[in-house]
Amino acid sequence: MNAEIIAIGSELLTPFRQDTNSLYLTEKLNELGVEVVFKTIVGDNGEHLAASARLALSRADIVLFSGGLGPTEDDLTRESVARALGLGIRRDSDILLNLERRFAERGYTLTKNNLKQADVIVGATALENLQGTAPGQWITGKYEGRERIVILLPGPPHEMKVVFEQQCVERLRAKLPKRVIASRVLKITGLGESACDARVAPIYKRYIDVQTTILAAAGEVQLHLQTHAPFLHSAQVTLDELVGEIEGELGDLVFSDNGDSLEQIVGYYLQMRNATLAVAESCTGGLVAERITSVSGSSRYFLGGAVVYSNELKTGFADVPAALIEKHGAVSREVATALAEGIRKRCAATLGLSITGIAGPTGGTAEKPVGLVFHALASEQGTEVVERKFPGDRERVRRFASHHALDMLRRKLM
Amino acid sequence: MNAEIIAIGSELLTPFRQDTNSLYLTEKLNELGVEVVFKTIVGDNGEHLAASARLALSRADIVLFSGGLGPTEDDLTRESVARALGLGIRRDSDILLNLERRFAERGYTLTKNNLKQADVIVGATALENLQGTAPGQWITGKYEGRERIVILLPGPPHEMKVVFEQQCVERLRAKLPKRVIASRVLKITGLGESACDARVAPIYKRYIDVQTTILAAAGEVQLHLQTHAPFLHSAQVTLDELVGEIEGELGDLVFSDNGDSLEQIVGYYLQMRNATLAVAESCTGGLVAERITSVSGSSRYFLGGAVVYSNELKTGFADVPAALIEKHGAVSREVATALAEGIRKRCAATLGLSITGIAGPTGGTAEKPVGLVFHALASEQGTEVVERKFPGDRERVRRFASHHALDMLRRKLM
Repeated sequence: MNAEIIAIGSELLTPFRQDTNSLYLTEKLNELGVEVVFKTIVGDNGEHLAASARLALSRADIVLFSGGLGPTEDDLTRESVARALGLGIRRDSDILLNLERRFAERGYTLTKNNLKQADVIVGATALENLQGTAPGQWITGKYEGRERIVILLPGPPHEMKVVFEQQCVERLRAKLPKRVIASRVLKITGLGESACDARVAPIYKRYIDVQTTILAAAGEVQLHLQTHAPFLHSAQVTLDELVGEIEGELGDLVFSDNGDSLEQIVGYYLQMRNATLAVAESCTGGLVAERITSVSGSSRYFLGGAVVYSNELKTGFADVPAALIEKHGAVSREVATALAEGIRKRCAATLGLSITGIAGPTGGTAEKPVGLVFHALASEQGTEVVERKFPGDRERVRRFASHHALDMLRRKLM
Repeated sequence: MNAEIIAIGSELLTPFRQDTNSLYLTEKLNELGVEVVFKTIVGDNGEHLAASARLALSRADIVLFSGGLGPTEDDLTRESVARALGLGIRRDSDILLNLERRFAERGYTLTKNNLKQADVIVGATALENLQGTAPGQWITGKYEGRERIVILLPGPPHEMKVVFEQQCVERLRAKLPKRVIASRVLKITGLGESACDARVAPIYKRYIDVQTTILAAAGEVQLHLQTHAPFLHSAQVTLDELVGEIEGELGDLVFSDNGDSLEQIVGYYLQMRNATLAVAESCTGGLVAERITSVSGSSRYFLGGAVVYSNELKTGFADVPAALIEKHGAVSREVATALAEGIRKRCAATLGLSITGIAGPTGGTAEKPVGLVFHALASEQGTEVVERKFPGDRERVRRFASHHALDMLRRKLM
C-alpha cells in the first residue's frame, strides 16, 4: 500500500513556514511498510483542498491530511474532504460536550466558531485529541471503486503526533499486510559528517539490503539504518551485525544506538552511578540546564545550578575569586575550573560542570575569538578542562558548547 | 498570476530530507507579486512526474520544477515535463560542447549518461548553470488554451538559486504586471488562537485586499498580513491602517508588530529602563535564562540567576526559608514570591523573576496537577504573583511558563 500526505495551511505556502508533520508521518508509515508517494501542500482554500483530496484519493491507498481542523473560518479540511468523498457532515454531541468541558476547565466560554470542531464526516470515527480541541477523523471506504483509508489529523505537531500514535498506528496495522521494517539510529559525537562517512561507508556499503542515510546536526552526526524483511528477527539480525561493525570502527564516538538523546544518556549514567550534578553556565545561559531538565525525572540526579552571566555572579554563586577573573578574564581555563569546582561545592553535588565562552556575534578579540569556549568538569578526583573553538553563529556556538559539555559528562561517567 | 512549485526526488519522500528550495522560490515569487498556490513533492518516477506536471499546468500560471535534471537514470524531469506538454526533446549541441569542456577541465570523460544533460524540450530556452552540469530550462506557451510559464531548475540549492536569480527573475518580471507585495507580522500573547480570531476577524475582513493568516505557537499567536498593490507606498499605507486598528482592539496583548521575539522586546525595555534582571527557575530548568541570553547583547541587562531544581538550592541560592517550603510546598504562591525576592536581592538586580511549577508528566497531585505554575516578579514596588494551569506535555508546559514569565516582565516594563 502507498500513501499521500496533504499538509493544509496558507502559512505553509509562505517563505516562513514549512510542513514538518510529513517527516514524522513518513517515518511512522515506513515502519508499517507503507511508502509515501506524494506530498502536497495546499492553502486554506476550499476549492483547492477538495481538488487535492480528489486527486490524492485517485492515486493513493491511504490519504492523510494534517491541519485545517481548527475553529476559524480558514479551517476548511472537514467540509472539503467530505465534499471530495461525496459525504455529509454531522455535529457530534459527545465531542461538543467534551469541548464545553475543556473550555469550562480553563475558564473560557465556547464561541460559535468552536462549535464546528465538533463536526464529523458522516461515517467517520472521531479520533480523540487530548492535547487540543480539534479531534482527528478516520474514514474507510471506496473511492472510484477502490478501497481507501482517509485520516484527518490536527496541524499542531504535538497534537498530530499523539493522535496518530495513539489512534491510527494500530488501526493501520490491522489493515496492512504483515511486513516489517527494522530501523536503527546511531548517534555520534566528536566527528564531522564527512569524516564519519569516510570511516563507515566501507562498512555499510557491504550491506546492500540496508538503506543508510547520514545526517548532521549541531555537534552530532546520525546514521539512519533501515531494512525490510518478512520477519522481524532476520531484519534485526542484519542490523545488529551492521551496528556492531560500525561501533567497532567508531568506538565510544557512538553515544546512542537506540535513538536516545545525549541528555537522556547522561541521565541514565548519573542514575546508574548514583551521582548528582550541578552546573554553572556563562555563555550558554541556561541551555545545558534546560537540556538536562527536559528529561522527565531529571530531579533524581540534577540539583540545579547557576547562570553566571555577570562576573559578580561568578563570584556570588560559584565562589570564583574576583582576582582570578581580573587576572585571566572570564573566558579562561582558570575561571572555567574555578566555576566547576565552586558550583560543585556550593550545591554539594557529585559532579560540577561549567561553561564559559564567547557566543558572539560581538565580544570576540584576536586572542579570544567568537566561538572560543572552555568546558570544565569537577569531581572528587579533580577537574578536567577542555578548550574548543566552535564555528557558526551565536545559536550554533551555544548548541555546540552545550553538546560538548554533555559529552564530557558522558565520557566521565562511562 | 499564481504559481505551483514541484520538488522532485525520492529522497524528499523519506523521513530525513525536506524540500527547502520552495521556501526560497516562494520568497522570490512573492517579491514579484506572484502567489504560490500549491507545492507538490514527487519521487523519481516518470508517471508520477508527468501526472503532477499536467495537473500543475491545469491550475497554475507558472509551474516551477526543481530537481531531476542530473545525469542518472533516476533523473526524469526533462522527458516527463516534455510528455506533459506534448512536446519533443532535442539534444543541444552548444550545451553538449559546454559539457565536454567542463568535463575535460576536471579531467573527466563524458559518459553516455551525461549526454542527456544536453537534452532540451523543443521550444525551450536553456538556462546556463555555472555552478553545475545541469542547465535549467524556460518554456512559455499555451496549455489547454491558457498561457503558461514553465521553469525547470536544478535540485541542489546553490545551483537552483543562482540559475533562478540570474536567469529567471528578469524574464519573469518582463511577463508580469507591475505589482508589489507588502507584509507585516503581529505577535500576540495572553490570548488563544480562536479568542484572538474572534476579536480581530471583524477588522481584517473589512480589508478585502489583505490576506490574513493566523498562526499559533506555544504561548503566542501570530497574524501574518500581506497585501498587493501597484506601488509599495499604497500597500504599506493599507497595512499600517490595518495594524493600527488591530492594535487598537487588542491593546497591549500585541507585543510586536515588526517580527521581534518576546525575548528581544523584553531586552529593549530593560535597556530603555536601565534595569537589570535576575531569574530563579525551578520547573523551566533554565529555559527562561536560555531564551533571554539567546539575544546578542543580553549581558547589558541580564545578570544571571539560578536553576533551583532541588529545595536545598532554593534556600542556598535564593534564601527561601526551608520552613516556608515545608509549609506550602515548593510549588506555591509563597515560594514563588520568596524565590523572586531572594534572587533579586542576591543578584542586586532591578527585577527578580521566578518560576516554580509541575512540568510533568509525573509529580502531579489532585491539588497540584501537572501544568500548575506560579510566576513571580519582584521589584522595588513589591512582588506580583500569577498562577496558571497550562495544558500539554512537559515541553509545552515549560514553553508556556517561560513565555508567560517573559510577558509578565514586558507588562511590568511597558
